[in-house]
Amino acid sequence: MYLAKVFITLKPSVNDPQGLTIMGGLKSLGFDTVNSVRAGKYMEVRLQEESENAASAKVEEMCSKLLANPIVEDYSFELEKAD
Amino acid sequence: MYLAKVFITLKPSVNDPQGLTIMGGLKSLGFDTVNSVRAGKYMEVRLQEESENAASAKVEEMCSKLLANPIVEDYSFELEKAD
Repeated sequence: MYLAKVFITLKPSVNDPQGLTIMGGLKSLGFDTVNSVRAGKYMEVRLQEESENAASAKVEEMCSKLLANPIVEDYSFELEKAD
Repeated sequence: MYLAKVFITLKPSVNDPQGLTIMGGLKSLGFDTVNSVRAGKYMEVRLQEESENAASAKVEEMCSKLLANPIVEDYSFELEKAD
């Protein structure tokens, strides 16, 4: 069993109103050293595969087909062995 | 300037309908080795602080006050030096 930690972020050129709103909230709470906030998604996917290579190929395919929107989002992931 | 990568996940005991829906989507696309999916949030916060300790304390405070809901969510973060 492998655990994939998947990080999905908006591409740098894409506007991020959610991030701007969070930054506004932080500033109004007094966190005035904040320069920018970018909001994204995080997913933990557990999958039953024989090898790390097989798991990595599957997760790559999941990201490009469903988890991320490759038009406006970038993704990356880390794999680790899980019980 | 420091970059904080913040990961927010639902606590293990909290139901995650979004994760279940994503798992259903993956299975219907033929990814039948998936065992579970947990959905969470990911944020990149850039902040201007003098030291890593100061930055870490600020990010910890941001997470507990605004970014995460400590009743139902866990959070963790990584700090790195940024330009």
